Amino acid sequence: MPYKEIRADFEHLRKLFIFPESEDRFIEFGQMILNMLHSYFREKGGIHSSVSLKSLEEMFSEISIPRGPHLLKDIFSEIEEKIISNSVKVSSPYYIGHMTSAIPYYSIFVEMIIAALNQNQVKIETAKASTFVERELICWIHRLIYNFNDEYYNSSIQNRNVSLGSVTLDGTLANLTALLIARNKAFPADGSFRGISEEGIAEAYKYYNVERSVVFVSRRGHYSIDKINGILGVGTRNIIKIPVDKYNKADVNLLKHEISKIEEHNKAGGARIKIIAIVAVAGSTETGNIDDLYEIRKCAESCGAHYHVDAAWGGPVLFVDQYRTLFRGIELADSVTFDSHKLLYLPLSMGMVLFRNEKDPDFIKHNSTYILRKDSYDLGRFTVEGSRPFSALRPWVAMKVFGSEGFRLLFENAFKLTKFFQKSIINSSCFELLNIPELFIINYRFIPEQISDFIMETASSDSRGYDAEKIIEINTALNDINKDLHRHLRHEDNSFVSRTVLESTQYHGQMIVSLRAVTINPLTDDNILSEILLEQQKLGEMIFRDYSVRIDSIIKKPR
Amino acid sequence: MPYKEIRADFEHLRKLFIFPESEDRFIEFGQMILNMLHSYFREKGGIHSSVSLKSLEEMFSEISIPRGPHLLKDIFSEIEEKIISNSVKVSSPYYIGHMTSAIPYYSIFVEMIIAALNQNQVKIETAKASTFVERELICWIHRLIYNFNDEYYNSSIQNRNVSLGSVTLDGTLANLTALLIARNKAFPADGSFRGISEEGIAEAYKYYNVERSVVFVSRRGHYSIDKINGILGVGTRNIIKIPVDKYNKADVNLLKHEISKIEEHNKAGGARIKIIAIVAVAGSTETGNIDDLYEIRKCAESCGAHYHVDAAWGGPVLFVDQYRTLFRGIELADSVTFDSHKLLYLPLSMGMVLFRNEKDPDFIKHNSTYILRKDSYDLGRFTVEGSRPFSALRPWVAMKVFGSEGFRLLFENAFKLTKFFQKSIINSSCFELLNIPELFIINYRFIPEQISDFIMETASSDSRGYDAEKIIEINTALNDINKDLHRHLRHEDNSFVSRTVLESTQYHGQMIVSLRAVTINPLTDDNILSEILLEQQKLGEMIFRDYSVRIDSIIKKPR
Repeated sequence: MPYKEIRADFEHLRKLFIFPESEDRFIEFGQMILNMLHSYFREKGGIHSSVSLKSLEEMFSEISIPRGPHLLKDIFSEIEEKIISNSVKVSSPYYIGHMTSAIPYYSIFVEMIIAALNQNQVKIETAKASTFVERELICWIHRLIYNFNDEYYNSSIQNRNVSLGSVTLDGTLANLTALLIARNKAFPADGSFRGISEEGIAEAYKYYNVERSVVFVSRRGHYSIDKINGILGVGTRNIIKIPVDKYNKADVNLLKHEISKIEEHNKAGGARIKIIAIVAVAGSTETGNIDDLYEIRKCAESCGAHYHVDAAWGGPVLFVDQYRTLFRGIELADSVTFDSHKLLYLPLSMGMVLFRNEKDPDFIKHNSTYILRKDSYDLGRFTVEGSRPFSALRPWVAMKVFGSEGFRLLFENAFKLTKFFQKSIINSSCFELLNIPELFIINYRFIPEQISDFIMETASSDSRGYDAEKIIEINTALNDINKDLHRHLRHEDNSFVSRTVLESTQYHGQMIVSLRAVTINPLTDDNILSEILLEQQKLGEMIFRDYSVRIDSIIKKPR
Repeated sequence: MPYKEIRADFEHLRKLFIFPESEDRFIEFGQMILNMLHSYFREKGGIHSSVSLKSLEEMFSEISIPRGPHLLKDIFSEIEEKIISNSVKVSSPYYIGHMTSAIPYYSIFVEMIIAALNQNQVKIETAKASTFVERELICWIHRLIYNFNDEYYNSSIQNRNVSLGSVTLDGTLANLTALLIARNKAFPADGSFRGISEEGIAEAYKYYNVERSVVFVSRRGHYSIDKINGILGVGTRNIIKIPVDKYNKADVNLLKHEISKIEEHNKAGGARIKIIAIVAVAGSTETGNIDDLYEIRKCAESCGAHYHVDAAWGGPVLFVDQYRTLFRGIELADSVTFDSHKLLYLPLSMGMVLFRNEKDPDFIKHNSTYILRKDSYDLGRFTVEGSRPFSALRPWVAMKVFGSEGFRLLFENAFKLTKFFQKSIINSSCFELLNIPELFIINYRFIPEQISDFIMETASSDSRGYDAEKIIEINTALNDINKDLHRHLRHEDNSFVSRTVLESTQYHGQMIVSLRAVTINPLTDDNILSEILLEQQKLGEMIFRDYSVRIDSIIKKPR
């Protein structure tokens, strides 16, 4: 402990629970915190702070709970020195590596309100106005996606026996809620069978003579889908991952083929395979592409599967009328995931799941004896979560601050940034574009000018001219170079893009190390993007020197 | 819309993302919010605001997302007028109805820090110091529960390949994480079988020749256990609920009996029944009682089941050495749930799950391809959740502000309040105590003085004198009276206790409507508790007048 413990005294501690008589003292403290945050954000310098992970390990290695109380001012100084200054500046315009970006500054005041009211959304007794605010928000997003008529919304917005959707703690839980409903709907109560949730999976399979149930998702689906199928007892190996086409969209023909194989199997008699759900992606986290939601919907319909669209990331783009066509078919999804901490530019974390059919949430409804009353206003009747904060206030306020018009402007700007970045890569002689961005994610890699012609020519030749072995070897070397480059970028710490590994569409599925930029921050501009790329080019060229002999020998190797 | 939209302009909106050049403007806004909250908390008046739910329905019935942006000051006024003033004052010393109570005022500043840094705990790239803070906190709570030696904690606190526990979004998710591990551990990979998570439940049962798996929990267990077994595919009907004794603790003999029935079944050959887990409760949400953790542990050991203790509510009481004996055996649990938004007096919501065996989390480990790297510092490798805020800062700060000594004082005060309330009920001629509190929850009901002697005598007579039918009828009338009383209390709105229905221990299992007080608020005192009871007595007596004829006729009815 760098500072002193004080004597524990009940009256002193009790005072911490009272809002100070005069707001002055309260403001005084608030001001201290605001100054602290302010100077952190205005400070120039790196994104990650230069402290090593090793030093952080040492910094936070006190193994016991402090015994006595400490003074607030000492604790806040410790926070400033050890935590704030060693945080990742995710809001920096040079940080274009992840889905977390800048948040509007007023939103940190909204957090104060959420915490101060401390409403628990599980139950009307602990959440009064906030219950109705949450329902209003859900209605807005439902309408954005499904666009039913006014009459429907007027009669359901505050109808406590209708659930248009749920606020969840994050996107994973929104997907979990949707797939839980899908699973329960696939094995409903029937005769002596009381439904899969009550009887368990093994009994459900027995009753319905099913040997296996499956979930379809694109290979670009979020990893939470795997996790969820493990949790739900379906089994991760029963996820059928559909390969993507060169636009990183699930290949609908391959999906149809897989479905027809299952249908044939089922026709043959004996235990059946049940398709629980088909999951489409609207803005994949890796490449930002949107599946063909309309065509996939037809597949789901044909086989009677629940149709879920994971629009955790891309959903808010629906605000922009001109881009709605990208999402054609989302209005036919049985359920949709939509996050507020990604493209709504809000602090972590809150997800939502919306339902086309208001009866679907009944498949997970619990009016658990004495805590949640059946015909009450209790939102907890339909959620996987229990206690839950009033996070709905965040997007509710954001909708008013920006309006759909305001979000349109933010996304138009993000589209411009994406186009600029994409063009810069295409026009450069030392980068290769690895996906065709639909939203705001660009995958690319550094390729030294000296070999870029060679690899492009060799890769694009016809089957006779295509030298698979050489391409594989060169790509392996390029993977190493790009990993090195990313390491150097982290070390320089002037900007941040993320690194991923993509199953390539242009290199016959070879795994390609890729740099990944998410160009959504309203504070980022074309100059910043150019600066970022220039640094990557310079570092890449420097790194290449260590690889030139290796690459040269690959190129010169006879076939 | 009560106020005007403004024109959407990118440059204007962009400025919202920049921390203002000078902190003055920032402070100015902050001050506005603080004043707003301040006056709400200092305002006298009811707990629930007098607005009807019907009016709230109307107040929040705008069915479309606002089109244009609005001015912050207008939005914040709307929040003050419509939301803040219509929230439940859960921090009021007269609000003793739920587990949400007052929070220390400084903690709303901590929320500003969490939001402003906006670290995403899923991955070290988006969470630098915060990853290490979270690990330090987990170590503290682990030690509080398990108390291994210094050497163990020094070597594991920041060892990225060891997971002592996880921070979760709420207590339900902590329980879910624990039971998911239990399920996976019960059906591990073996030979050609790749583990239940990968293969699914049906395959697991086949491979292990199991027909059914079960989870044991006390009848006082939290409803999340039901929900979770539905989610995990085990089936809610495979939860075996152990009746409680008169202290509201799971009856260990009945548990043993159930286990031996299963063991006999398994000995008989054929498909087996697998006991996945035994869940004990350390501070039940209904009565606050703690199961005999030590004895239940022996049962779990004897049948090789995972032993989980749900200490979501009671856990922090471990800070007080003298009450540790209540929890004897918790240090032998395989996993423990521990919430920060209940007895740590912090804003919603954050749970934790701690593991005795650091290898257990491996049963849910995912190093999902490219997002989470295998030997990284990424906390997301072990969590059910994906994106997750830096909520760990809340309890980390609280531990420093209060220290274990400070929490001891808070709980000693809560114990005093509980004793006072309990004594007041026992000494009163018109209330009946329905549980013997171990922690800070008191269940009781109003019984009009005129019949309290009759019911107590009749209920406690030997089997010959016991007039079961009369008691049932009277209790039914008393249930109605207490429901009425609760309605009146809600209407008066001077104080708040919750209402529940308890399976009585003293009335042969009859369901008894009960009032439930949670006496943990440091701002509540003996006078307030007396005031609350006095109002209940007065209202109860008034209500009784409408019931006296009905009750009289029950009493006078011949046997």
